[in-house]
Amino acid sequence: MSQNLHYPSEQGYIAQLSIDCVIFGYRDRQLHVLVPKLNFNGEFWALPSGFVYNDEDVDAAATRILQDRTGLADVYLDQFRVFGKAARTNLSFLEKLIALNPDKLGEGINNRKEYEWITRRFVTIGYYALVDMNKLVPKQNELDQSIDWYPIKDLPVLILDHNEMIATALETLRENLDRKLIAFNLLPETFTMKEVQELYEAIFDRPFARNNFQKKILDLNVLERLDKKFTGAANKAPYLYRFLNR
Amino acid sequence: MSQNLHYPSEQGYIAQLSIDCVIFGYRDRQLHVLVPKLNFNGEFWALPSGFVYNDEDVDAAATRILQDRTGLADVYLDQFRVFGKAARTNLSFLEKLIALNPDKLGEGINNRKEYEWITRRFVTIGYYALVDMNKLVPKQNELDQSIDWYPIKDLPVLILDHNEMIATALETLRENLDRKLIAFNLLPETFTMKEVQELYEAIFDRPFARNNFQKKILDLNVLERLDKKFTGAANKAPYLYRFLNR
Repeated sequence: MSQNLHYPSEQGYIAQLSIDCVIFGYRDRQLHVLVPKLNFNGEFWALPSGFVYNDEDVDAAATRILQDRTGLADVYLDQFRVFGKAARTNLSFLEKLIALNPDKLGEGINNRKEYEWITRRFVTIGYYALVDMNKLVPKQNELDQSIDWYPIKDLPVLILDHNEMIATALETLRENLDRKLIAFNLLPETFTMKEVQELYEAIFDRPFARNNFQKKILDLNVLERLDKKFTGAANKAPYLYRFLNR
Repeated sequence: MSQNLHYPSEQGYIAQLSIDCVIFGYRDRQLHVLVPKLNFNGEFWALPSGFVYNDEDVDAAATRILQDRTGLADVYLDQFRVFGKAARTNLSFLEKLIALNPDKLGEGINNRKEYEWITRRFVTIGYYALVDMNKLVPKQNELDQSIDWYPIKDLPVLILDHNEMIATALETLRENLDRKLIAFNLLPETFTMKEVQELYEAIFDRPFARNNFQKKILDLNVLERLDKKFTGAANKAPYLYRFLNR
């Protein structure tokens, strides 16, 4: 764990451009978001974020930032929106952080060039990822005190506009759900129809009528029906399904 | 008309970030795109583009760039994707332009600072606009030789990745069409059901079955039925409709 905050150097990165990742998972009938807490005095939560090297594709940078916190490279990841308000800057967040951590941040404060680099206005590109929470072991990086899954209805207050970014990512997920058939990325390899319905209900935060829902999903012709799930009561056992195009 | 190309100065703009606008219109049963041709020797077409002032919201910059070529501010305009390949640069385009226009470009070539600014890698944010072609008089700016509507199936070869951007904007338009009910932005104030169907057929480049299509559109409950259109044959006259939420 580093004792000093090293502001990212101007060297190698595109200035004033960042990437923030909203990583969605699903567990206990609730949509979750993976949120690191910064390893400093004060309560600072921030989305997994980073910058783009000058010789790196923007999409590759997003994959790198995602992989840094998840260990996973081959997951659903897509841009959802650019956040580009003129007033969007790290300045007030960093001032608070420095005031609460004078011992740790001496070097950073003294390095005016890096401080000016990081406190300029940043345009950020929002990406969202859909992951199977069973497959993922969250990874702390050197700035993290902890990294945890938070239910989307019980998120901490994050820095900057990160809570707004999560809300916009959720909106996009809802809009894209049927059209892109992406929800299955949140489920394990096999699942029951009831589990699919519970997932949709968690994402849209409203109930669906069972028969209509099942018909709609089956009509998509994207699921393969497997053997029945063993529950101990054979005649009541539900079928297991698998997503064909995964 | 300026005789010299003035590269945008570093002063005031965010470096390495640009905006490109795909402006869609609809006429003669064909989707069209508004494309300026540059006022230089050589055949250079480019999407309406620009940069973001440091004190300007990204969305406001897109509105400004759109207004510059259309005179319109209050039209449907939305981000669709960031294009951020590491190799994305104006360098080879500008080298061609300079080779064909040595007389006009002396000042630009001599101003190394500006030349270095404009030939760096640029990450660009793609916006698309939907406009009523009847309301719009395309405006040349000082770099344009001409500015014209091109049918989407008969586009010139544009600089950089601008043709790919148009293709991606069309994909987004198709994906968003029903969900966001945005197609009506391309039509005049009032229209017949047949005209709506022809518009959808132009966008999706395939026919729709008349009865199904009309039922689907009317079921959206977003259209107000007005008087019949006068065609001279009263009994055959189609109804006119108006979009309610415009």
